[in-house]
Amino acid sequence: MVRTALMGCGRIGRMHADNLAAHPGTSLAGVFDVHRPSAEAVAARHGVPVYPDADAVFAAAEVDAILIASVTETHADYLEKAVLAGKPVFCEKPIDLSLSRVDRCAQAIAGRPAVIQLGFNRRFDPGHRAAWKAVREGEIGDLHQVLITSRDPAMPPRSYYESAGGMLRDMTIHDFDLARYFLGEEPVEVFAIAGRRIDPPMMDEIDDHDTAMIVLRTASGRQCHINNIRQSRYGYDQRVECVGAEGMLVSENRRPHELRRFGGRATEAGQPYLDFFIERYAEAFMAELTEFASAVGESRQPEVGFEDGRRALVLAEAAYRSIAEGRMVRVDEIG
Amino acid sequence: MVRTALMGCGRIGRMHADNLAAHPGTSLAGVFDVHRPSAEAVAARHGVPVYPDADAVFAAAEVDAILIASVTETHADYLEKAVLAGKPVFCEKPIDLSLSRVDRCAQAIAGRPAVIQLGFNRRFDPGHRAAWKAVREGEIGDLHQVLITSRDPAMPPRSYYESAGGMLRDMTIHDFDLARYFLGEEPVEVFAIAGRRIDPPMMDEIDDHDTAMIVLRTASGRQCHINNIRQSRYGYDQRVECVGAEGMLVSENRRPHELRRFGGRATEAGQPYLDFFIERYAEAFMAELTEFASAVGESRQPEVGFEDGRRALVLAEAAYRSIAEGRMVRVDEIG
Amino acid sequence: MVRTALMGCGRIGRMHADNLAAHPGTSLAGVFDVHRPSAEAVAARHGVPVYPDADAVFAAAEVDAILIASVTETHADYLEKAVLAGKPVFCEKPIDLSLSRVDRCAQAIAGRPAVIQLGFNRRFDPGHRAAWKAVREGEIGDLHQVLITSRDPAMPPRSYYESAGGMLRDMTIHDFDLARYFLGEEPVEVFAIAGRRIDPPMMDEIDDHDTAMIVLRTASGRQCHINNIRQSRYGYDQRVECVGAEGMLVSENRRPHELRRFGGRATEAGQPYLDFFIERYAEAFMAELTEFASAVGESRQPEVGFEDGRRALVLAEAAYRSIAEGRMVRVDEIG
Amino acid sequence: MVRTALMGCGRIGRMHADNLAAHPGTSLAGVFDVHRPSAEAVAARHGVPVYPDADAVFAAAEVDAILIASVTETHADYLEKAVLAGKPVFCEKPIDLSLSRVDRCAQAIAGRPAVIQLGFNRRFDPGHRAAWKAVREGEIGDLHQVLITSRDPAMPPRSYYESAGGMLRDMTIHDFDLARYFLGEEPVEVFAIAGRRIDPPMMDEIDDHDTAMIVLRTASGRQCHINNIRQSRYGYDQRVECVGAEGMLVSENRRPHELRRFGGRATEAGQPYLDFFIERYAEAFMAELTEFASAVGESRQPEVGFEDGRRALVLAEAAYRSIAEGRMVRVDEIG
Repeated sequence: MVRTALMGCGRIGRMHADNLAAHPGTSLAGVFDVHRPSAEAVAARHGVPVYPDADAVFAAAEVDAILIASVTETHADYLEKAVLAGKPVFCEKPIDLSLSRVDRCAQAIAGRPAVIQLGFNRRFDPGHRAAWKAVREGEIGDLHQVLITSRDPAMPPRSYYESAGGMLRDMTIHDFDLARYFLGEEPVEVFAIAGRRIDPPMMDEIDDHDTAMIVLRTASGRQCHINNIRQSRYGYDQRVECVGAEGMLVSENRRPHELRRFGGRATEAGQPYLDFFIERYAEAFMAELTEFASAVGESRQPEVGFEDGRRALVLAEAAYRSIAEGRMVRVDEIG
Repeated sequence: MVRTALMGCGRIGRMHADNLAAHPGTSLAGVFDVHRPSAEAVAARHGVPVYPDADAVFAAAEVDAILIASVTETHADYLEKAVLAGKPVFCEKPIDLSLSRVDRCAQAIAGRPAVIQLGFNRRFDPGHRAAWKAVREGEIGDLHQVLITSRDPAMPPRSYYESAGGMLRDMTIHDFDLARYFLGEEPVEVFAIAGRRIDPPMMDEIDDHDTAMIVLRTASGRQCHINNIRQSRYGYDQRVECVGAEGMLVSENRRPHELRRFGGRATEAGQPYLDFFIERYAEAFMAELTEFASAVGESRQPEVGFEDGRRALVLAEAAYRSIAEGRMVRVDEIG
Repeated sequence: MVRTALMGCGRIGRMHADNLAAHPGTSLAGVFDVHRPSAEAVAARHGVPVYPDADAVFAAAEVDAILIASVTETHADYLEKAVLAGKPVFCEKPIDLSLSRVDRCAQAIAGRPAVIQLGFNRRFDPGHRAAWKAVREGEIGDLHQVLITSRDPAMPPRSYYESAGGMLRDMTIHDFDLARYFLGEEPVEVFAIAGRRIDPPMMDEIDDHDTAMIVLRTASGRQCHINNIRQSRYGYDQRVECVGAEGMLVSENRRPHELRRFGGRATEAGQPYLDFFIERYAEAFMAELTEFASAVGESRQPEVGFEDGRRALVLAEAAYRSIAEGRMVRVDEIG
Repeated sequence: MVRTALMGCGRIGRMHADNLAAHPGTSLAGVFDVHRPSAEAVAARHGVPVYPDADAVFAAAEVDAILIASVTETHADYLEKAVLAGKPVFCEKPIDLSLSRVDRCAQAIAGRPAVIQLGFNRRFDPGHRAAWKAVREGEIGDLHQVLITSRDPAMPPRSYYESAGGMLRDMTIHDFDLARYFLGEEPVEVFAIAGRRIDPPMMDEIDDHDTAMIVLRTASGRQCHINNIRQSRYGYDQRVECVGAEGMLVSENRRPHELRRFGGRATEAGQPYLDFFIERYAEAFMAELTEFASAVGESRQPEVGFEDGRRALVLAEAAYRSIAEGRMVRVDEIG
């Protein structure tokens, strides 16, 4: 049992608290949030202590590991402190919105033998993982193309956008990680376009995008397409398609159940998709804890670590440069 | 080229005329209908002669074969005459609504070396046939259960019912034939229930049914379920499911194309099914002509012949007795 | 929190223990099993006491309710004792394999205001329930036919059969309950055939069946078909199809995830189905506890109670008489 | 009946000959091919004359219209001659592989009131067209993204490649046309990558590609992705996906029938897709003749004309420049 303290008791933090408590390999050791009532509510629900400040968490003897689910701008600080305190750390994505801050974080923890896992949960989705495993086992031969469709069901509130750091750093970053995961090679080139189609006035005002298409290419020539929309209306659309020399694998969307309707206007009409990420990736959020508990227990690096967090951010930066310059950007131009 | 004369120029006759003209192995030699304008319309469309009466067809030297698509009460007479005239005959189902008339017909043609094919077209549907072939080739091991779903899209007009001879002789007879085809053994017992649910007053008045469920069992114990509804509202539902020791095969419904709709209330909603039999079984109607032309060319019995027509009717009679007596009826009680 | 004691710590008991502990409306108060090591294992896992004998459970003040998951022959005894002790009871199906024992149980508890829920979990499956709700809300108009397909993935061990009480009382009983649930009316007639096709020698020896087809009819003429196979090979097949005046609803099978494979021989090939009932009906097993906790809290009858357990058994008895006599059996011939 | 002469009696020409003969609005007037035995075979099959040379076709009084299905380098010449002879012309894609030749052709026929249809048959596929119609009717609101997947089942022979003019001019050109058709606006920017993954040595030798991804953007910001592979192994993959403000429409692949297989390793495994274009787009090839016959009858421009052929080629040229320069290319840089 990895006794894990939780930093941050917002929506995703509360979910992690429940998962840490329910998971057979972890327990919830205590919680912290700068907004103390949020911390107290989670603590009360699970019968665990509230830490008075962040430093108390890193110092606590009964805390084996730290799970960082606080606001993005605290991630890098907490991550550094956890590592310096010698505690394994699970950090929600992104490490930081600024690549230079990520690089300083890397320097700060360099040489420290730390267990660091990034919260790229989608790698742990049963369908995506089964597809990945089939690719790795050669079921479709040499991999040629990967297509990732990732569309949110509905626009988040404006306040969300204002702190999210831009669509490609916030939403697409998951897809950049999936792209790296499935391609099995580093993308070396990035091309992107992005638009303002769902709510153009707001997007203009906050200088963000709601619709994007991205192309990646690896050194060996594997091709990857990502498409994103902030509001699909028909649900949370999460698909991965891999095509290789011998066939295709598709990790399809999921529904809460399989009722199908047949009437005069439509046949086999299915339920709306599982909506939203907490429901769609419920198994993935638990499975990533399994990996974390196992990595902590074995003092090894988790499957998805600090460098994965950094590289996804590098791809986002390359994509932004591509948008600005209308050209294919070499990833090594960024970092 | 089997030069084939057509008896009966109603809806199904007109379809057969087009098929005989288009099929590479057949041609339309001429037509006859007691309603002469119907015959003339078909004849004009295809540039073929109208015969003045039925006997002229059987006597015509340029007629290699006869296709009977006239009203049911003429089938047995025409079939006898065709056989006595030494001409191969393709006869729409049923041979007759009366089993005793069918038996007299059998006696009348006994000993005559005749090519006779019955119009049980569904055996020739590409999906049903691929399922049947897979069963025969042992893909699912020993066959245990067959489930046949057969539902019409909408109620035919009252006039149709009045001459159809009862739902089980008219509609279910196709399913009885499919049951025999898939089971690979003769059913030896029949149980049936039938109801009046779509239009009870009309069904009461004409003493017919619009909804039925049937159970068949073969000597070796294979089980078969048939369900029928005269009006599904969601299209022409035509499915066959075979379960065996090693798996299942399902011949599913077909749509005119594969547009799928995704919106806030439904995902993957498909088109309504192909509706009705002329569209759904278009390929089957052509494929049965291929079998007929080939059987004529090789002077052999077609895959589906007179005795198949008779046995399907025997099953319908057994089912009617089961409905009347509320018990499993042995098929050999009927004939 | 309904503090619930568990009787019986076998496979299904262990699952219920986990569910009682995890469910927000219940807690596991303690356990009992005649095989004390089994009880101790469950008790240790959840940190709860082991009761020394069954009576200690019924007497325990800290026990608000009883969940009976012990061997079938103890169900009726425990149920009576729980009711006499004034404790709400959740009883796994069946109440007993003998209808007369069930009736004596009913007499023993008559007049006692008891909360009794039967473990017909399938009613609580999200897909089945959504179908049922749509039927009740009139989405497909007047209901005409219900088709229930229920096939186990693989043969249980012989020891299971020897105590199961016959396929129709053990396996089909769930489908009889679903039939009543969906039909919305009591079946008044039953017809059944059953065979020995998967393992005929063993079935002969223990006088049981492994393959069945059943027809039910309600007073208003609604029709229902059930088919069962003890070994499908392709997974746990659990489908419900409802056809009415305006359309069809199908609660389809579920897979652990939605990976689809495309290769030279097959397209869109899905994963094997969720296998077996503990996985397939995981949500249903939790949802039935929600209903139980709610009924206990509101001192009301649960949605599925003692009489539902009895009526499903009556249908099984009617089906066995139908098999023996080859005829439609009126349900009121049985009880 | 539009009496239509066929230029070119290769594979696609023979198909057009059959279609012209079978279509109710057209007839086959005669044929020409520089390889006379090919012309004679088609002529014999349909009982029509062989013209001694191309000019004889344009001069023939009994020829109402011309269908050009000869080798690509003859298209523009024949098209000019047909127009100058005052005959409506149906021309297989492309008009020419060289944009400057296409422009000279345009000048040559400028001012002549000609009916010219290009063979972009996919617009006439029932599924694609139903999707397009739904988009146009506003079913998914404002259109945001179009995704076109277009993969051939298997590599054509090397000789095919050598005369095809490059993957983007030969294969992708259909997708460029579909992109314009669905987007409802002209693409103003093109980005493309292309690779050599299926058969790198041959692709190097003939300087062609077998795998591509393309991004298009319209003036209003609609985004389009196209992906191509020359050899999928799992069949001819032809999908169009349209996402808008209110939902998604997908025109899915089609199979020859709907047999589904269920076994221990896979469930719901479908048939391989219809393979290849003559089978997959059989209805589309007939439907484009309906449009042609109708346009000729009404002396109007067909839905897809000369300028559509030119614009698809312009997009291919822009894509090649993008590949060469690694940047987004403005379409007006090309022409």
